[in-house]
Amino acid sequence: MIQRPRTSFVFDLDGTLVDSVYQHVMAWQKVLDSEGITLSTWRIHRKIGMSGGLLTNMLLREIGKELSQDAIERLQSKHADEFARVVRDVRPLPGAQALLDALSKERIPWAIATTGRLEAARPLLESLGIDVGKATVVTREDVQHAKPDPELFLVTADRLDAAIETVTVVGDSVWDMLAASRARAFRIGILAGGYGEEELERAGASRVYNDPADLLFHLDEVCTRDRFDK
Amino acid sequence: MIQRPRTSFVFDLDGTLVDSVYQHVMAWQKVLDSEGITLSTWRIHRKIGMSGGLLTNMLLREIGKELSQDAIERLQSKHADEFARVVRDVRPLPGAQALLDALSKERIPWAIATTGRLEAARPLLESLGIDVGKATVVTREDVQHAKPDPELFLVTADRLDAAIETVTVVGDSVWDMLAASRARAFRIGILAGGYGEEELERAGASRVYNDPADLLFHLDEVCTRDRFDK
Repeated sequence: MIQRPRTSFVFDLDGTLVDSVYQHVMAWQKVLDSEGITLSTWRIHRKIGMSGGLLTNMLLREIGKELSQDAIERLQSKHADEFARVVRDVRPLPGAQALLDALSKERIPWAIATTGRLEAARPLLESLGIDVGKATVVTREDVQHAKPDPELFLVTADRLDAAIETVTVVGDSVWDMLAASRARAFRIGILAGGYGEEELERAGASRVYNDPADLLFHLDEVCTRDRFDK
Repeated sequence: MIQRPRTSFVFDLDGTLVDSVYQHVMAWQKVLDSEGITLSTWRIHRKIGMSGGLLTNMLLREIGKELSQDAIERLQSKHADEFARVVRDVRPLPGAQALLDALSKERIPWAIATTGRLEAARPLLESLGIDVGKATVVTREDVQHAKPDPELFLVTADRLDAAIETVTVVGDSVWDMLAASRARAFRIGILAGGYGEEELERAGASRVYNDPADLLFHLDEVCTRDRFDK
């Protein structure tokens, strides 16, 4: 009989489990504006999901500017302050908690892998009822390189004691799909970050769902659920 | 010798010439929230470009709710107030004014066709240097049905004294493309509203550009420019 590998789920946080992408976009725009850097909103939107440092570098490259490392760190710090100011408006996405509960109930391992820092992620994780002390949560501090580098997903798989080839990555951005492809994980896209379905598919998503509720409803499509019950 | 029809350009305003889509999204979310209607941000984003009435109806249909006509009108009025509060943060998109100037210089007729009301559109039009008294501007008040109904583009073509089959519609949303297809106009998509390139193509865009600057740079692809000079 074939040996079926155990599946584990690794979730991005912003735009995948919580409805925070648009707040991040507006916070980045405000902060870049304050440094005299005018960028169209959609360009910022399409870079969310990278680390703040990479995001700033990529945006500046598009408009042909350069900033010192100091200035980039100042921008990141300003963004953290600005996002903290609006974080109370951020809501869990429909079905987020129910999806994690369902996985736990079926004893399917799961973890959170976010490009954000733990300080920024903590209130969002708490809004999902996640116990940061107990759950597997990998943040910016745990890796040297943020998405689209595969390191974040590789470290998370290692924490779950899972081979990356058996892992399913769930994310809302093209950068999640790219990092997960580079890591050789299976990939699921979520529309709630505001990317289009075809953008996520072209970036490597095998399936795309509206939000965690939609993924939960179709969980049979991407994961065999009855193997632990038998 | 064949008779080549004269081309005219009809531009959507929000997300096509000015960078206002994300402000509209956040304003709608705030207003819906105040009425106890919680919707994921991306769902609101994907409905921007319709009239407020249609947008509200479509969103409510997705979550299986209904509102009275009174409540919908109250929502629209609250949204207008909320958007007016943030309109000073809205900037023209790169190349918007230069594109309109280039068309004027080449004596290619152009007009603005927006689902917004004139009161909301006026400061945005002024930010583009458009003289509302002189330019052809068609707003919500001028039509019975908003996009995705074709009426707005048909009325605008009529104002330009152009057959709709000779008109080029430029818009950032799937609703612009759908309305323009229904009207039988040629269609150009703009990414600055935050839709993906493939979403616009699938909705009927023959070409998609980043923003007005990118369209101006590639104007030769969609319009013969030298016919008035010879």
